[in-house]
Amino acid sequence: AKTYNITLLPGDGIGPEVISVAKNVLNLAASLEGIEFKFKEMPMGGAALDLTGVPLPDETLETAKQSDAVLLGAIGGYKWDKNEKHLKPETGLLQLRAGLKVFANLRPASVLPQLVDASTLKKEVAEGVDLMVVRELTGGIYFGKPRGFGTNENGEEIGYNTEVYAAYEIDRIARIAFETARKRNGKLCSVDKANVLEASMFWRKRVIAIAEEYPDVELTHMYVDNAAMQLFDTIVTNNIFGDILSDEASMITGSIGMLPSASLGESGPGLFEPIHGSAPDIAGQDKANPLATILSAAMLLKYGLGEVKAAERIELAVLNTLDRGFRTGDIYSDGNKLVGCKEMGEEVLKSV
Amino acid sequence: AKTYNITLLPGDGIGPEVISVAKNVLNLAASLEGIEFKFKEMPMGGAALDLTGVPLPDETLETAKQSDAVLLGAIGGYKWDKNEKHLKPETGLLQLRAGLKVFANLRPASVLPQLVDASTLKKEVAEGVDLMVVRELTGGIYFGKPRGFGTNENGEEIGYNTEVYAAYEIDRIARIAFETARKRNGKLCSVDKANVLEASMFWRKRVIAIAEEYPDVELTHMYVDNAAMQLFDTIVTNNIFGDILSDEASMITGSIGMLPSASLGESGPGLFEPIHGSAPDIAGQDKANPLATILSAAMLLKYGLGEVKAAERIELAVLNTLDRGFRTGDIYSDGNKLVGCKEMGEEVLKSV
Ligand SMILES: CC(C)[C@H](C(=O)O)[C@@H](O)C(=O)O
Ligand SMILES: CC(C)[C@H](C(=O)O)[C@@H](O)C(=O)O
Repeated sequence: AKTYNITLLPGDGIGPEVISVAKNVLNLAASLEGIEFKFKEMPMGGAALDLTGVPLPDETLETAKQSDAVLLGAIGGYKWDKNEKHLKPETGLLQLRAGLKVFANLRPASVLPQLVDASTLKKEVAEGVDLMVVRELTGGIYFGKPRGFGTNENGEEIGYNTEVYAAYEIDRIARIAFETARKRNGKLCSVDKANVLEASMFWRKRVIAIAEEYPDVELTHMYVDNAAMQLFDTIVTNNIFGDILSDEASMITGSIGMLPSASLGESGPGLFEPIHGSAPDIAGQDKANPLATILSAAMLLKYGLGEVKAAERIELAVLNTLDRGFRTGDIYSDGNKLVGCKEMGEEVLKSV
Repeated sequence: AKTYNITLLPGDGIGPEVISVAKNVLNLAASLEGIEFKFKEMPMGGAALDLTGVPLPDETLETAKQSDAVLLGAIGGYKWDKNEKHLKPETGLLQLRAGLKVFANLRPASVLPQLVDASTLKKEVAEGVDLMVVRELTGGIYFGKPRGFGTNENGEEIGYNTEVYAAYEIDRIARIAFETARKRNGKLCSVDKANVLEASMFWRKRVIAIAEEYPDVELTHMYVDNAAMQLFDTIVTNNIFGDILSDEASMITGSIGMLPSASLGESGPGLFEPIHGSAPDIAGQDKANPLATILSAAMLLKYGLGEVKAAERIELAVLNTLDRGFRTGDIYSDGNKLVGCKEMGEEVLKSV
């Protein structure tokens, strides 16, 4: 049997609950396709802070790097919100992304026919929403230097960050986005603020240059404020705009509890995580929707390991479970069966 | 009779059409309250570029500064999209905001009962949406230095900008936001990305400090990605996040053609403009919705001149016109009367 090493990073809040469910689903789907998984669970985020004093222990990063793929639950919580920057759970996540060099974050968001009722949008608008945000993940204002606190020339206290992109950073994310668009409907929209920001003008210039390699893909450009009004198709954008727009997309589809993501680099293991957060308010109550993490596990199989059949087993199992009417609270609508995190997981297992 | 000097900046695209309609409404509402207006129309944006070679001629800025309030249509268009930065219409707008020192941009967004059907949201969700985005307008990454193009330490080409806020910039916008929240439901949500950005950590620290002056206002904080999923209440945020979130809010309410804005400084004339753009694709076709500009004229009366009665005349006239079923294409729904920009203006005039 083929064997893969998978690093599991449950993290904080609802993270451990959704990871435990997704692990079982992943395991079953793989074994039915003759694949064997060796799982290693490592501390990360607030959990790692409490245990080791840092949000990303060296052993966690090393284990992740040496594995074939990494599945993350969620990190963060009120408890650590006031920590200094280097002691925030979020800093651990950024270190993990940078350490794994996963610069391309794919965030699909579609409204499943079964969940049209759960969307805040009108039925006519929600039906057929099918977006893909390709977010640059290891550059831009998240990582740019100089950054910090200081005083300006008038002696006033300031806080500052740098939005910066180098040509190679834009080129490589653009290529991933063009490839992705090619597999979808052949259309790509690059989102920037090139009417105001130099970093965006440069972004647009490079995206246009890379477009020459993809004459079959139709490229358009849109300002980010405009994009916030009319999300559609495949979008490629910088780290911070991608953060905002992909969460907005999740609102449009009705449940952030449904949306997976894949973060990929040139080589090495990919990082797979639901786009929702750690939801500390419902942690430990068996209320979390595990489907985003289960679908992230499917992305792990497909994009991380190239195990398309096992991935499809999981995707179909999720659809089948929804067809059978099982819903966690966040996607519940009249006439369906309300279940908790564990039971949802068991129902998916039945359908794998 | 009280006399005020008003600078009109029609700008580009549909700008001249909506300004011409709004001017008539403004004039009538004022004269019914015994107020006299002296209007001066000046070139700005692409129109100014074509006429004078710069997007904000000195005479335009001087006239604006010397007047009691400024009403702007919209600027920009495909024609100038490839211009160098200092020759972009948008640069003229930023120079105008900076020149007038209007650091506080108020962007209300509500779903009028008459227009619930025009929203992309489900009726239950759309009903009662009533937001106010208080956007910092003359600082942050829009104006921060250093900015530009260059090479990094590895000799790679880069584009970069600086997100920077000084204490006084945050303090003054926070005060305006607390005052605004006090007049609404006493709740203020400050939106930042303090889990990642130092500029946001500093923003949050100053907003918390200013909160001591407003013990009656309930202050909360939210990360911008989270806010993009659940807009509500009164929000105070930086220049770029405000740009994105207020346009998203307009999508939620169903028509960007309805939303006004006011930009205010410590003293001096305020700048009033619809939040929509110049819509070059429908320019000159008498299709534009003039209501956002008409409602901006109402904000001019209320926030700019303190002429509350004349402002209310306009607000009521707009509601009355909608009650009578008149709709431009962007807000049209079955059973109403489809009208153009001019006719909509005439109907509002009848109700003033
Ligand atoms: C937790 C935070 C640092 C992170 C981000 O901003 O990237 C999260 O919002 C996300 O989108 O994965
Ligand atoms: C035209 C552009 C510079 C402007 C901005 O980004 O501020 C516009 O989008 C707005 O929101 O008024």
